[in-house]
Amino acid sequence: MTVPPAPVVFSKGHGTGNDFVILPDPQAALDLSAAQVAALCDRHFGIGADGVLRVVPTRAVPEVQDQADVADWFMDYRNADGSLAEMCGNGARVFARYLVQNEMAAPGRITFATRAGTLWADVPITGEVSVGMGTPASAGLQAVAVSVPGLEAEGVAVHFPNPHVVIPVADIDQAGELRESPQLAEPELLPEGTNFEFVQVLSPGHVRIRIHERGVGETLACGTGACAVAWLHVQQMELGPQPNVRVDLPGGVVTVSQLQSGEWVLTGPAELVATGVLEQGWWHAA
Amino acid sequence: MTVPPAPVVFSKGHGTGNDFVILPDPQAALDLSAAQVAALCDRHFGIGADGVLRVVPTRAVPEVQDQADVADWFMDYRNADGSLAEMCGNGARVFARYLVQNEMAAPGRITFATRAGTLWADVPITGEVSVGMGTPASAGLQAVAVSVPGLEAEGVAVHFPNPHVVIPVADIDQAGELRESPQLAEPELLPEGTNFEFVQVLSPGHVRIRIHERGVGETLACGTGACAVAWLHVQQMELGPQPNVRVDLPGGVVTVSQLQSGEWVLTGPAELVATGVLEQGWWHAA
Repeated sequence: MTVPPAPVVFSKGHGTGNDFVILPDPQAALDLSAAQVAALCDRHFGIGADGVLRVVPTRAVPEVQDQADVADWFMDYRNADGSLAEMCGNGARVFARYLVQNEMAAPGRITFATRAGTLWADVPITGEVSVGMGTPASAGLQAVAVSVPGLEAEGVAVHFPNPHVVIPVADIDQAGELRESPQLAEPELLPEGTNFEFVQVLSPGHVRIRIHERGVGETLACGTGACAVAWLHVQQMELGPQPNVRVDLPGGVVTVSQLQSGEWVLTGPAELVATGVLEQGWWHAA
Repeated sequence: MTVPPAPVVFSKGHGTGNDFVILPDPQAALDLSAAQVAALCDRHFGIGADGVLRVVPTRAVPEVQDQADVADWFMDYRNADGSLAEMCGNGARVFARYLVQNEMAAPGRITFATRAGTLWADVPITGEVSVGMGTPASAGLQAVAVSVPGLEAEGVAVHFPNPHVVIPVADIDQAGELRESPQLAEPELLPEGTNFEFVQVLSPGHVRIRIHERGVGETLACGTGACAVAWLHVQQMELGPQPNVRVDLPGGVVTVSQLQSGEWVLTGPAELVATGVLEQGWWHAA
């Protein structure tokens, strides 16, 4: 007798337009291949997403088992091309919202495992989710020259923890040229490449940004980019202790704040859109 | 006592990469606004699709009630921006597959209502679906000059029934320039605009094409475009009675054939990917 494979359940959700297919895997039974992840994330042939968040018990995954005492669930994040990824600020909010909405964690402060270590999140019953983002890896400022068609500018490199180059501009709407990805004048300064954020300061504590992600192009939102921009803004504006920065992204609004402990926190929307099952057999064709 | 709204059920499917959110509406209870359709089709904030196919009883919809004697179900097709659309060859295959897979029609020859009149489809239990596409509206050939960066060429205008300009090229891979949408040298010849298809003939009865859809840009597939290209190919190659043309699209392979009656038929894959429900409340926020 052939036992038919169990249906593959999924949800789709997003944080400021950064969207994810969420795969609950309480039995740690999904052996996700890169090809399956890419098929799932394909926006025309699959469900479509920027990445996959597998929800799996921490104790079942050797690479994060050391976090099992403090984190029941592991956020197994994969990029849309199927490669493994360490962390994603927007994905973490969606993951936390998913756990609470599906009663896999109680509302309030929760912790979960990631490849970059244990994260905490504050998840109210409804509304925005806050995630601890740590501190920037490079506290020093490094000026770098960048060029965009029609604009020669200077940016500042910030690692939070991945590389960002933050470029002040007068008006992010005006510059249709900002659709083109910027180039570093001296690429050897950041040999692994970098994300770019154009920043327009609206008032102290309130900025608007546009984002070019490394290897992707212009995107709707980037959690670590918002943190890098806010961190730099706080240094430059001398906003005082425990500052709050509102960051308007193309995909929505987030708030970046600093706790008394020095840790930075990213707060923003995390919305689940739908829940379903993959067609029988579709999965196995990938 | 407040009765919670019924869950909104959906499926997602595609035909050669042209993808659709399918909304079963057996009670004709969904009053779809353009904003709701656009929210559903948004690839980052919604489910994501090229369009919506609402599956609704023909007798319940005044504008197509005259088809109710021959067609139980109406394919209420909406573009991704929420506007009404008459027909879509790839959508029709997916719609037909959906009806049979969900036992709303028996496998074999089925008919369903559209805004462009009643369609027939042949739907086997598994495998490719054939849809009757009628005959081209313009049997005569009209040569039109077109320009693409790096290429001055002549195309042929074919209405099937919407406007297409078919442009022969030696190699559709070679021309990176083909990413740019072509321009008509005399736009006044086709005042409502046109789709463009670049065609490379591989052998008699086998072509490869790239498509630029009016108002969209380059796309993975276009059912009427494949028919227009195949029709012209048959005229030019004198393939004889009841010809078959294999058309390789970026999103997959379709076959265009002509019946003894003179009618043209489009045959190709139609795949359902997933079925689910929208989050409670998400829908009403749109």
